[in-house]
Amino acid sequence: MLHFDSDYMRGAHPAVMQRLMETNLEQTPGYGADCHTENAKRLIMKACGLTGGEVYFLVGGTQTNATVIDGLLSRHEGVLAAGTAHINVHEAGAVEATGHKVITLPSSGGKLSAETVRQYISGFYKDTTYEHMVAPGMVYISHPTELGTLYTLNELEDMSTACAEAGIPLYMDGARLGYGLAAYGTDVTLKDIARLCDVFYIGGTKTGALFGEAVVATRKGLLRHFTPLVKQHGAMLAKGRLLGIQFETLFSGDLYMDICRNAIRMAMKLKEGFTSKGYELYIDSPTNQQFFWLPDEKIDSLMRIATFEMWGPRGENRTPVRLVTDWATRQDEVDELVSHL
Amino acid sequence: MLHFDSDYMRGAHPAVMQRLMETNLEQTPGYGADCHTENAKRLIMKACGLTGGEVYFLVGGTQTNATVIDGLLSRHEGVLAAGTAHINVHEAGAVEATGHKVITLPSSGGKLSAETVRQYISGFYKDTTYEHMVAPGMVYISHPTELGTLYTLNELEDMSTACAEAGIPLYMDGARLGYGLAAYGTDVTLKDIARLCDVFYIGGTKTGALFGEAVVATRKGLLRHFTPLVKQHGAMLAKGRLLGIQFETLFSGDLYMDICRNAIRMAMKLKEGFTSKGYELYIDSPTNQQFFWLPDEKIDSLMRIATFEMWGPRGENRTPVRLVTDWATRQDEVDELVSHL
Amino acid sequence: MLHFDSDYMRGAHPAVMQRLMETNLEQTPGYGADCHTENAKRLIMKACGLTGGEVYFLVGGTQTNATVIDGLLSRHEGVLAAGTAHINVHEAGAVEATGHKVITLPSSGGKLSAETVRQYISGFYKDTTYEHMVAPGMVYISHPTELGTLYTLNELEDMSTACAEAGIPLYMDGARLGYGLAAYGTDVTLKDIARLCDVFYIGGTKTGALFGEAVVATRKGLLRHFTPLVKQHGAMLAKGRLLGIQFETLFSGDLYMDICRNAIRMAMKLKEGFTSKGYELYIDSPTNQQFFWLPDEKIDSLMRIATFEMWGPRGENRTPVRLVTDWATRQDEVDELVSHL
Amino acid sequence: MLHFDSDYMRGAHPAVMQRLMETNLEQTPGYGADCHTENAKRLIMKACGLTGGEVYFLVGGTQTNATVIDGLLSRHEGVLAAGTAHINVHEAGAVEATGHKVITLPSSGGKLSAETVRQYISGFYKDTTYEHMVAPGMVYISHPTELGTLYTLNELEDMSTACAEAGIPLYMDGARLGYGLAAYGTDVTLKDIARLCDVFYIGGTKTGALFGEAVVATRKGLLRHFTPLVKQHGAMLAKGRLLGIQFETLFSGDLYMDICRNAIRMAMKLKEGFTSKGYELYIDSPTNQQFFWLPDEKIDSLMRIATFEMWGPRGENRTPVRLVTDWATRQDEVDELVSHL
Repeated sequence: MLHFDSDYMRGAHPAVMQRLMETNLEQTPGYGADCHTENAKRLIMKACGLTGGEVYFLVGGTQTNATVIDGLLSRHEGVLAAGTAHINVHEAGAVEATGHKVITLPSSGGKLSAETVRQYISGFYKDTTYEHMVAPGMVYISHPTELGTLYTLNELEDMSTACAEAGIPLYMDGARLGYGLAAYGTDVTLKDIARLCDVFYIGGTKTGALFGEAVVATRKGLLRHFTPLVKQHGAMLAKGRLLGIQFETLFSGDLYMDICRNAIRMAMKLKEGFTSKGYELYIDSPTNQQFFWLPDEKIDSLMRIATFEMWGPRGENRTPVRLVTDWATRQDEVDELVSHL
Repeated sequence: MLHFDSDYMRGAHPAVMQRLMETNLEQTPGYGADCHTENAKRLIMKACGLTGGEVYFLVGGTQTNATVIDGLLSRHEGVLAAGTAHINVHEAGAVEATGHKVITLPSSGGKLSAETVRQYISGFYKDTTYEHMVAPGMVYISHPTELGTLYTLNELEDMSTACAEAGIPLYMDGARLGYGLAAYGTDVTLKDIARLCDVFYIGGTKTGALFGEAVVATRKGLLRHFTPLVKQHGAMLAKGRLLGIQFETLFSGDLYMDICRNAIRMAMKLKEGFTSKGYELYIDSPTNQQFFWLPDEKIDSLMRIATFEMWGPRGENRTPVRLVTDWATRQDEVDELVSHL
Repeated sequence: MLHFDSDYMRGAHPAVMQRLMETNLEQTPGYGADCHTENAKRLIMKACGLTGGEVYFLVGGTQTNATVIDGLLSRHEGVLAAGTAHINVHEAGAVEATGHKVITLPSSGGKLSAETVRQYISGFYKDTTYEHMVAPGMVYISHPTELGTLYTLNELEDMSTACAEAGIPLYMDGARLGYGLAAYGTDVTLKDIARLCDVFYIGGTKTGALFGEAVVATRKGLLRHFTPLVKQHGAMLAKGRLLGIQFETLFSGDLYMDICRNAIRMAMKLKEGFTSKGYELYIDSPTNQQFFWLPDEKIDSLMRIATFEMWGPRGENRTPVRLVTDWATRQDEVDELVSHL
Repeated sequence: MLHFDSDYMRGAHPAVMQRLMETNLEQTPGYGADCHTENAKRLIMKACGLTGGEVYFLVGGTQTNATVIDGLLSRHEGVLAAGTAHINVHEAGAVEATGHKVITLPSSGGKLSAETVRQYISGFYKDTTYEHMVAPGMVYISHPTELGTLYTLNELEDMSTACAEAGIPLYMDGARLGYGLAAYGTDVTLKDIARLCDVFYIGGTKTGALFGEAVVATRKGLLRHFTPLVKQHGAMLAKGRLLGIQFETLFSGDLYMDICRNAIRMAMKLKEGFTSKGYELYIDSPTNQQFFWLPDEKIDSLMRIATFEMWGPRGENRTPVRLVTDWATRQDEVDELVSHL
């Protein structure tokens, strides 16, 4: 059976597992006060081209989003996001559970535009009753988005400027950041992101780690008193070094990008395979998530040899499906799937 | 100067003030444990045609919505509402501040349809990841809506059935309930509302009281442990009898409806005046809120003799405006305004 | 029947009621944007001897405490308070409901000492795991305390200094502030309080108003974005002028202090009456709350002519009771009660 | 250098690591819907002697406590706990951040007595103002406690009865549960705990796992809608099988108890070593945490060869210290430490 359901179906990249094994009997202080964590932070700062700022390691994505958003917003503020944003749809109300509104804006292909943000904020403060409304306190974007799309450098520059004009931070959910950076044709680098976002996170769970997300605050003081907040959110790992060791491994040499490049290569093979056999793209994604329209009988037959997700309810004749590759997806797996089309 | 900005610009109906004066030196137990409050509850139950259930008095609308919603939802649940709902737009995130998401659904003229609710709920539970999403835990509607529109009896029956099918309560925000009941042509009575909603409130602030909202839970056990929750929300008035006395007065005889009928008569005069002079309705409302398109120069000239609200940002040639009547609006005020058109 | 249960059993001082009547048909903007509210703020600032700062009017005490504390604390912070503090015992967890811990410290007679605060804070930051603990973010005191006791000027100066040293605000719950200011022998004035506290509130509910509490932030910027927070907490009154008019009346001339002085005179008569008949003080309070030990048979006989509160569960032979006076308590009421001893 | 600071300084027991390696390339569904997780649940149910009930796997202790407490309490309720309880002191206000009060009761050696709980609850409901107070909604105990002490079977039976009488659940924090079960002389078994508690968790982080805590709800329906709540709390691991595999390994055969028995053996050797050299116990603990009074010069000299925690601020002559053993502590490490005394 082939599996293209998601990028969190396997454990970790073997190099990550090996380092966890090698370090297993080391005794280190808990809660991230160990040298692996220190080193991982240094490596990430370097990869980001940052000299100031802070790196924090948390366990999972929903937790990271809720904790960062709680750390950035005042009580009267909400977070601007696309209606399709993960925080709005698939995090069980974690943001609202900390008391903050997700203010949804019109979006396209999972992407918010700077113009939409500017218009909302300017309209907001023109409203004479704005003090009865939830103030826009930050912007949340994901890159890649939940629909596998990417911002261009120009778009990010524009969004960054819009946020700076409004005096609110720009936060990027990078659950699949590496796949965005490795995508063919993107003009956005990690250093660009570190320059243009106030806070972002580099996902580990979906890109070769067992778990873990690296939050990067690109300037000191953006996430004040964040350590107690991480603890309060239940997001502080006792054996914090597990996060340090994994990110240390991923960011020593080029492993993180190697992992992501494999997924992209395999995703492009998938796309080529499907489109060459005449299947229509549901969304044209340059990332490790691929979306196709499939006739229902083809879905039924493919499901005998592979697992993957319906992207929405089954249609009458055809249904969009999502197939996801990762660091471990092999050419022969893609070939086998495509051969059944 | 004439004032048509809103229905909370004056104090209370003189009969309410008189009763507050007459009872001022009485000494009664605090927190609503007095005989006026008891009597007011009895009168409201009677007006609603209820034999079971509970009545609670709170101070203001935002507070009432947040407290009732907090009382009806479990932690993993959110409230379904129109995007234009007061709780979604003009309550400063009070619902989210208690940890709950406002799940916005498509609406028309401020109204949700039972069909929309049914579709959302059925789609929700078909989603295999629904446990990662905020469960629909109740439906919020307002009557009249924020746009001055009304549900028909058929629509309410249908919504009530949809909620019962889903096993979730239907809650009606009745900040201006009386104006809805007094509207010409409505087929919805207070008893219908008490029969079809699980919880609703009868607004006092905008209909003749100094302040105060009467929450009606139409069956015992719907709002369990509501008294400590009211206290926790800071919504319990020490001199609770002030609420009791006001609602006792409003619901002794027909005062509450008399008040509302005057506002409706004056609103219909306004509508007639404006339309007879050729101004277009922005929304066709049968309630005490009237919405017209006005040319910008007419707005400017009217503003010399009257205050009223722009309903949205000023347009290039014309702008919608809102004019609101209340229990105290007089025919001569309406005439004077109309004479300036 | 005589009533000494509490100071919120009657309506408002007649002068307050008269002003509410006189202004009843005025039409003013809502939410406190009216001239009465403006004037009341000015009068209170003057009474406090403040030239900078802000005044806000809220409806009730629990609401005021929760909103102010929420406005002063960051998410990782809690409020230091006596274990007997109203926020810790009798506000149904309103502070925790906004996400903040009430950190209870040892106290005496309802009072916290600056020394206790200093020791706690210094111990806290010596603890190497302090980032796993709730940071002390402010100090809450009440004056008079829940036990009718008062801080001396020296004690307040010391507490104010302790807070300044720690860089955290000092907040005073003044639900019965006027009774503290009018107490015989106190050396604390309203101007002292305005000088020594960062934020405090002047209670209206228990001192002659129908309801209402005036929050005084003694410097600009202490309560940032407080207006949306007040709205979010459901603490913003639509007819905000009702609060303005009441405080305008109380602080025009010397009415507020006159009201409180009457209560104190009557309380001292009570104390004299009880002690001269041989009854022991349970707490020696200089305020309008008086606490006595009474034999159980005396309680039973008094309860035939008067209502008052047991202060704790009935004992085997004797029980402490509380008797409260207010602006309306008359000498003949006190005399009648004492004559039954 | 020797390390006796805590039981979370190393990685996982080698058998756990080996299973994580062996299963690393398996592809399984996420979020705990895999067969390892299923099997781990089955094994834990069996070890607990349960036929009904539910098992959930979360990542860490603070997260587990906050999520379970949030799942068990209604909004108006708080959790009864010892003042020394981990949730009250060292979880950064995570319980309050979800809106609930930790109601602290007098305790002894970290233990609550059933009598204390009974008295509090009975006193609470005798208070006529109890609806203004936070209702006692559950009892939290830890076993072993934060001070390394243990409940006896009689004490647990009594506490369980007290909770049942009050109609509130008993929850046990078992961060170090295995060390309590393996302690010499305890008469409490895992099956007793499963019989007497409503909900408890079996800690993994401190007893041989990389991370992970197994929440056991001993009857169906105790933790309703817990899965979305776990997600909302950011406590759901994408690669949920990592938790399943670890607990599957720990509860296949007797590994979990073997691990804990080693820690206890080594702890008892430590105790014997210290006391035989004349050092006084600070707390007499039968668990893997040992507490001694040490002269300050002895602390200084030991710190040259070993790390361990001061248990409170340094005293003038002597200071209590804590030394902790775990599954990997070796006899020669203990011997070396003791030889330096």
